[in-house]
Amino acid sequence: MLIETERLRWQIEFLKEIDDLKQILRQTVLTKDRRQENDAEHSWHLAMLVITLSEYSNDKSIDILRTTKMVLIHDIIEIDAGDTFCYDDFDRNAKTEKEREAAHRIFSILPEEQAQEFIELWEEFEAMETPEAQFAAAADRLQPLLLNYYSEGYAWKKHGIKRSQVIERNQHISKGSKVLWEFAESLIDESVKKGYLIDG
Amino acid sequence: MLIETERLRWQIEFLKEIDDLKQILRQTVLTKDRRQENDAEHSWHLAMLVITLSEYSNDKSIDILRTTKMVLIHDIIEIDAGDTFCYDDFDRNAKTEKEREAAHRIFSILPEEQAQEFIELWEEFEAMETPEAQFAAAADRLQPLLLNYYSEGYAWKKHGIKRSQVIERNQHISKGSKVLWEFAESLIDESVKKGYLIDG
Repeated sequence: MLIETERLRWQIEFLKEIDDLKQILRQTVLTKDRRQENDAEHSWHLAMLVITLSEYSNDKSIDILRTTKMVLIHDIIEIDAGDTFCYDDFDRNAKTEKEREAAHRIFSILPEEQAQEFIELWEEFEAMETPEAQFAAAADRLQPLLLNYYSEGYAWKKHGIKRSQVIERNQHISKGSKVLWEFAESLIDESVKKGYLIDG
Repeated sequence: MLIETERLRWQIEFLKEIDDLKQILRQTVLTKDRRQENDAEHSWHLAMLVITLSEYSNDKSIDILRTTKMVLIHDIIEIDAGDTFCYDDFDRNAKTEKEREAAHRIFSILPEEQAQEFIELWEEFEAMETPEAQFAAAADRLQPLLLNYYSEGYAWKKHGIKRSQVIERNQHISKGSKVLWEFAESLIDESVKKGYLIDG
């Protein structure tokens, strides 16, 4: 018998399962070599944004640990459901259903109360109603903006993305942080000037 | 002027700089495709270990947020200093000096008190004296053990690693968590049986 307690056995099984998040590629590329970023790297970078920039949350009393947990786990569902490029058209209901199924399959590998905690954190992130979820969502939108800007608009150019699309998809940053949205707007303006984004 | 406040400007500069952690390859490979893991993915996985397994810390009152921050930032110095395979022989003093310089260069991109916080967290991790640092170090050793086991000893076989080396390099897991070290020992035994590790 490899593992003595059933509880630890399933926690380890979960930690093995989520190794596959490193296989899920995003449209965004890294600043140095233009390689596509994967979801695990992205999640780490978001956690770094959260612990570095939390002072800019509109709500100054957010729980940083809960916000960090949220960004660490928010994309795990994509192991089953895949990544969706935020500027693509997609069937939102079908996507939500697929992601919910994924959350239940993957998080339920864990002991029951821990599975429940992670499913609830994921649902809280998706609903974007609590200050923690709003700040986590702001980080989740700001990070690809940064990578796009510093990779000279690589993914934006590839997909012919326009300023209006970027504004529409990212303006909810302001719900989590007005300061970071103001910064994001300046980055978008600069990107149009530099030809990284189509002005339209 | 792209960014209005100097403070935010340097925080963003830091967040851009650490994008390069995704370029630093480790010897450990992923379970699915045997690709080498990079430090950003590794750091994300460690944070997941911390939030999933903290109940097994010898000290039940560890600060989970501080422990999580520690594992998120602990490898950032490798952007300058590179990764060291833990079973290689290396000059420990030269390595420490190089890493200290890296910590000061990279974290000092941040505003002063934040730079100080991250440098102290990194030094705390390295010193392995507080319960948080001991649990973070346990996660940092257990995660590659898991990947090695689930990739059928890929990196161990490649480098001809023996059981005694794995025991020596990983036994400090018990300082952070006796339960996880007991589990690690069973994993090492099983690895020898399966031929992933040399019995010696």
